[in-house]
Amino acid sequence: MVRTSYQASNCSIARTLQVVGEKWTLLILRETFYGATRFEQFHSVLNCPRNLLSERLTKLVDEGILERSEYREPGSRARHEYRMTEEGRELAVALLALMHWGDRHKADPEGPPVVAQHVGCGKDLHLALVCDKGHVMASIDEVEMVDGPGALPPVPA
Amino acid sequence: MVRTSYQASNCSIARTLQVVGEKWTLLILRETFYGATRFEQFHSVLNCPRNLLSERLTKLVDEGILERSEYREPGSRARHEYRMTEEGRELAVALLALMHWGDRHKADPEGPPVVAQHVGCGKDLHLALVCDKGHVMASIDEVEMVDGPGALPPVPA
Repeated sequence: MVRTSYQASNCSIARTLQVVGEKWTLLILRETFYGATRFEQFHSVLNCPRNLLSERLTKLVDEGILERSEYREPGSRARHEYRMTEEGRELAVALLALMHWGDRHKADPEGPPVVAQHVGCGKDLHLALVCDKGHVMASIDEVEMVDGPGALPPVPA
Repeated sequence: MVRTSYQASNCSIARTLQVVGEKWTLLILRETFYGATRFEQFHSVLNCPRNLLSERLTKLVDEGILERSEYREPGSRARHEYRMTEEGRELAVALLALMHWGDRHKADPEGPPVVAQHVGCGKDLHLALVCDKGHVMASIDEVEMVDGPGALPPVPA
């Protein structure tokens, strides 16, 4: 992949990172994928400052990645629950990619703590690079980055 | 995916984010995928403070994601070049996943600025969830997270 001389201001990676490019935010999303919905569930696993957690949850709601609703347990005040929107669920692929890299390079000697499997079938899964003709790429060497329809002209020197 | 009652201290996502979970670090990696190797190339696109860039490059070298070597242009002092290691190149899948999410949800009306294609074939590519039996999953609903060999017991209540 070689791509030079361009404006990066509309880069989709940078724009995604503006939304989720912060460690706690991605770990909150991890927890929602694992089934957490309530503030105390997030807090008990993440152990981050409560005001930071609250601020990050609100940002994810504002960005349309989580949806906030109310629930009330008998005798308690109303509280909030957080669930993934469809847009949020699409981030799962990025989380899996980060997880697989960590599994390969940072796991304990025993192996990864969590394994993603195909429901029903029970086999482990991986992310494959597939082109629109159906070719499965053997490595990232078969990928090239080219200007898309929204490419901006190079910054004048 | 539902997974509750576990210790998250050895989570592979968290460990990956300890290495690359910072906006500038991921954008530096983006630039190396685009072909940048020299400090000034990174700096001219990223426009981040020079000491921050220098610190992040050193961290990526320490972590084995970039390799530093010397080059010297005629009449100039020796300078450093940075290239991806194999370990670093494996992060490309995570960057592509973040890029595709941004393409779908944050692109300008004209479309994405950059498109990843299959070299030679020229078709756009996507990341597919494929299990070890060869099944291609239609959505993340077909994925479940189960305890792996390195799973830790739940934290005592």
